[in-house]
Amino acid sequence: MTINIGVIGTGAIGREHIRRCSTVLQNARVVALNDINRDNCQQIVDELTPEARIYDNAIDLINDPQVNAVLVTSWGPTHEAFVLACIEAGKAVFCEKPLAVTAQGCMNIVEAEIKAGRQLVQVGFMRPYDSGYRALKAVIDSGEIGEPLMLHCAHRNPEVGDSYTTDMAITDTLIHELDVLRWLLNDDYASVQVIFPRKTRKASSHLRDPQIVLLETTKGARIDVEIFVNCEYGYDIQCEVVGESGIARLPEPVSVQLRSAAKLSTTILTDWKKRFIDAYDVELQAFINNVISGEMTGPSAWDGYAAAVAADACVAAQTSGGIVPVTMPARPAFYR
Amino acid sequence: MTINIGVIGTGAIGREHIRRCSTVLQNARVVALNDINRDNCQQIVDELTPEARIYDNAIDLINDPQVNAVLVTSWGPTHEAFVLACIEAGKAVFCEKPLAVTAQGCMNIVEAEIKAGRQLVQVGFMRPYDSGYRALKAVIDSGEIGEPLMLHCAHRNPEVGDSYTTDMAITDTLIHELDVLRWLLNDDYASVQVIFPRKTRKASSHLRDPQIVLLETTKGARIDVEIFVNCEYGYDIQCEVVGESGIARLPEPVSVQLRSAAKLSTTILTDWKKRFIDAYDVELQAFINNVISGEMTGPSAWDGYAAAVAADACVAAQTSGGIVPVTMPARPAFYR
Amino acid sequence: MTINIGVIGTGAIGREHIRRCSTVLQNARVVALNDINRDNCQQIVDELTPEARIYDNAIDLINDPQVNAVLVTSWGPTHEAFVLACIEAGKAVFCEKPLAVTAQGCMNIVEAEIKAGRQLVQVGFMRPYDSGYRALKAVIDSGEIGEPLMLHCAHRNPEVGDSYTTDMAITDTLIHELDVLRWLLNDDYASVQVIFPRKTRKASSHLRDPQIVLLETTKGARIDVEIFVNCEYGYDIQCEVVGESGIARLPEPVSVQLRSAAKLSTTILTDWKKRFIDAYDVELQAFINNVISGEMTGPSAWDGYAAAVAADACVAAQTSGGIVPVTMPARPAFYR
Amino acid sequence: MTINIGVIGTGAIGREHIRRCSTVLQNARVVALNDINRDNCQQIVDELTPEARIYDNAIDLINDPQVNAVLVTSWGPTHEAFVLACIEAGKAVFCEKPLAVTAQGCMNIVEAEIKAGRQLVQVGFMRPYDSGYRALKAVIDSGEIGEPLMLHCAHRNPEVGDSYTTDMAITDTLIHELDVLRWLLNDDYASVQVIFPRKTRKASSHLRDPQIVLLETTKGARIDVEIFVNCEYGYDIQCEVVGESGIARLPEPVSVQLRSAAKLSTTILTDWKKRFIDAYDVELQAFINNVISGEMTGPSAWDGYAAAVAADACVAAQTSGGIVPVTMPARPAFYR
Repeated sequence: MTINIGVIGTGAIGREHIRRCSTVLQNARVVALNDINRDNCQQIVDELTPEARIYDNAIDLINDPQVNAVLVTSWGPTHEAFVLACIEAGKAVFCEKPLAVTAQGCMNIVEAEIKAGRQLVQVGFMRPYDSGYRALKAVIDSGEIGEPLMLHCAHRNPEVGDSYTTDMAITDTLIHELDVLRWLLNDDYASVQVIFPRKTRKASSHLRDPQIVLLETTKGARIDVEIFVNCEYGYDIQCEVVGESGIARLPEPVSVQLRSAAKLSTTILTDWKKRFIDAYDVELQAFINNVISGEMTGPSAWDGYAAAVAADACVAAQTSGGIVPVTMPARPAFYR
Repeated sequence: MTINIGVIGTGAIGREHIRRCSTVLQNARVVALNDINRDNCQQIVDELTPEARIYDNAIDLINDPQVNAVLVTSWGPTHEAFVLACIEAGKAVFCEKPLAVTAQGCMNIVEAEIKAGRQLVQVGFMRPYDSGYRALKAVIDSGEIGEPLMLHCAHRNPEVGDSYTTDMAITDTLIHELDVLRWLLNDDYASVQVIFPRKTRKASSHLRDPQIVLLETTKGARIDVEIFVNCEYGYDIQCEVVGESGIARLPEPVSVQLRSAAKLSTTILTDWKKRFIDAYDVELQAFINNVISGEMTGPSAWDGYAAAVAADACVAAQTSGGIVPVTMPARPAFYR
Repeated sequence: MTINIGVIGTGAIGREHIRRCSTVLQNARVVALNDINRDNCQQIVDELTPEARIYDNAIDLINDPQVNAVLVTSWGPTHEAFVLACIEAGKAVFCEKPLAVTAQGCMNIVEAEIKAGRQLVQVGFMRPYDSGYRALKAVIDSGEIGEPLMLHCAHRNPEVGDSYTTDMAITDTLIHELDVLRWLLNDDYASVQVIFPRKTRKASSHLRDPQIVLLETTKGARIDVEIFVNCEYGYDIQCEVVGESGIARLPEPVSVQLRSAAKLSTTILTDWKKRFIDAYDVELQAFINNVISGEMTGPSAWDGYAAAVAADACVAAQTSGGIVPVTMPARPAFYR
Repeated sequence: MTINIGVIGTGAIGREHIRRCSTVLQNARVVALNDINRDNCQQIVDELTPEARIYDNAIDLINDPQVNAVLVTSWGPTHEAFVLACIEAGKAVFCEKPLAVTAQGCMNIVEAEIKAGRQLVQVGFMRPYDSGYRALKAVIDSGEIGEPLMLHCAHRNPEVGDSYTTDMAITDTLIHELDVLRWLLNDDYASVQVIFPRKTRKASSHLRDPQIVLLETTKGARIDVEIFVNCEYGYDIQCEVVGESGIARLPEPVSVQLRSAAKLSTTILTDWKKRFIDAYDVELQAFINNVISGEMTGPSAWDGYAAAVAADACVAAQTSGGIVPVTMPARPAFYR
């Protein structure tokens, strides 16, 4: 069975997903394209999907009976409306992060989905599909290290552009940890605190970099995440889970080991796109498989909402300097 | 474009390749099956390929115009005839190792292919498709460690059954190194020697285990391969390339790092099937892509022949105890 | 030149230092012993130092003209008085931690030493003598990783007895980090905060374990130290320094690398006494050398005072849950 | 108790040992010096051992009743005569390698020592005193990896001068492995073979570099040692012991782990003097302790002889290209 996919937003990420459907994944074909710039769509048609139809209007694409499922990879502020339209049309939708630009927007989607009576939304958090994080979760779930008590994490980029602002350390960078750590621990956040260490001289004048975010979970686990987006040396994701009887650590990416010039070394990636490159494939194939099976797995609208609420608390904590509670309603039975 | 594949031999390996075509790879569908045991085919049809047709005769399968390409995964001694029939029929064929059970049989295929005027054969050596070996080759080819002078390799299995014989250390085990190291170094073997260390008490009474194979290449590089098939501790593949200015080492498989019970550890695999699990997918997708593009890449009939000649020399060296030259005709221009 | 050493307190640590002087170190001989239990002294004389004289009174030992330098390894609450007596007598004194049981007691020693006009006191913090910490400091001081911005540290014991209380996580355990990190960074503490993660089920009912201590330095570096004294898996000391352009990490102790039973592993120590075993030798030899040269180096009375002030702030932060400033007078010129 | 040491040969190595006695080790004092260049002795007296007496004749030094033990650190060809004179005088002697420049010379010493009726000679092989090799031997002796079957070793220098000749790869470089591996395995050599890989372009025109030496032990273990003295990247000693149920590997030297410039790295030494720097101290202290206890441990004259015989066989194998037996009389009961 091959499902027909419509894609809204054909920028860099949209294009990558279209390439995946065309050349890597099974059982999917891109048949419909929409972008605020029609030329972008035409270029995709010319290069990747000769049989895809171009729609001037995203809602028309969503409602075309030929389209079985939708990828929303447009500009963030448009996500909420498109996802709601997909739910309205009863179509499965894969929405790149953010699900909505506010927690309330995410909640609107949650409520629409509950009203629709079945899960249709998968949010584009790819780390739960990374083989390293999956292996780490398998160790935790096996009980081999006992109950998780502390997590020491880091999210480091070699550098960021001048347009990167202090709050983007939360909304663009930490957002991945906010999602994947909930999944890893099967837990929710209770409170957050943000600490600003001495600033690196490599950062823009307006940017506070690095930052340390302290998270407390409802089970009492404590998480520290170092966010350091001008670390110079590489793109480096670290996650160490300290349990009652042992510690498990996210694997480093595979690298040839080199003895050269008085160093025994492995390579650290510098391009973030390569760090989780396989996970993107697995993620989108999972969505396709979900559409075929009719059962949504993976990051849900509720997960998108939970990440948004936690991110809001972190941004508030950046400003207040204090400990900010993370307040959410109980998880609806619908999402269990 | 989707190619129609016929599979000859539906035992364990054949079944795995069929599963791959059905659930992992792009652009291929299994439409024809043959096995000396028809029930095996029926089971595949029931479980994986409801639309595939069962052939009582492999040659009929090969000659069916509906079949675009053939996978030969039958019993080794039948490979040569089936591959020759595919060449005769002008069809691309992926043949699991061995290409033929004698070097002469491989040469027969080489000659038939040359006569046919285009490459149709891909041999099922998967290591050149392993991301670790590819990364290692990239380092060598970059010149970063200078010219390769020595390789230190190991091929270790936790244990083998009683039916495993001393020569199988060459024909079943070392054969993978014989292929991948030629590819890694872009070189050929000049001579071989086999050394028998003190035998492990874990081996069958008739089996000499471990063994060390010493290979000399035409460029003068020296390779030592430890073959140890009752090493107990795991399935472990090592490859270290010593160049003029540095050393590059094949990456260990990815593993969570654990601190537990007074050990800092990573996991060593014990099941050989998991060690190159991704490489099998890449290998077969490459074959499919080759069929579509009409241009064969990857291990060729010539590579199958070269591995067979080297293996014969190693088996002779096991018996003689001396240094045995590896004698091959020059590589035909057809395979350059 | 050989210096004559008097030892006050011949319990486990005192005995170890006496053994060191007798069998490992150069240029020192233990000639005088005092302990509240005279039998302990006699046993030392019988086994290690046949020529040493036993004193019933520590002050007499200090004042004996034959004694060139004193080791204070008695019960903590007695340290202050004995060190003050040594200063009064103009004798070099090596005092095991704590220098005094209160910050004020340390300050009394500082003031006495300043009044005496020359440094006589070395405090028994051994980590600055550990080759790993010294290598780490060398990397930092080289500028290779830029200015230190963050430190991620851990101090883990496999288990502690029931008498270990929550504040001892600071005064007995963290105290080593409080000393060594000031030295490593050449910096002082500005504020502290203590976080209590979910408690491990392995800890005594009255003990909060693990704990995370957050330290801010006067230069703005941020330090997190995980203290986990029932971690089960080993005695493990971690220290990672995140600088502006790179990260340096304290070496793991040397260990044979083992491939065995499906694990690639190195050993983690379980006995804290082995972790810095060489550092104790280096530390005490340094004291002896200092006595001979007449110039004190190493942890000074001021360093003992600074550690005590920081420890007091941490204990206060355990109770208050808030951020507690570390308030100290400026470092006297005498100690620069 | 302090022993009085006489040193014959005050060049670089002699001077280092004198410094050790004066500033690092316990219970020894250098009281007598001899060198063919009297000025060298005077310089030592001026700088390190003001009370030492200078002898114009080595034999006089050996025979001076004031001298309890002798260090022979003169030019290799003089060693045999000086060691024989020490045995004649009944004095313990520490002789730097080589014990004698021929195997027969070593045998002369063995015979003299047996005739004298007690062990007096310790040969200056320091690797058995290295903490890494000792840890490796402890693992082997524990039975944790079963019986040793194969050893994979490497001895690499970054570069050598033009005066370094092909046979020096055996007599100057491999000689350390020839000694330490006998000790590690508690075994003797049965045969040797030398293989010459493709030559590195970094080596002198007259030097064959790298070389691979294959050793067979009397128990049947097989050892391969890569000798590569112009490897460019560092001074690197590797030793991996493959046993029946596991593999143990010599630890890498301690190093800070660095994340910097897209590399995760540790440092490889380039200066051979630093690789076993601690072992030299332990080795000489062991000699001093042996003199005091009256019982020789460590590398004996017999061990010096065995290394010399094996080295001769290796040099013969360099020329012949074949397998050369290592022929030795049975170990005399005297050395068990």
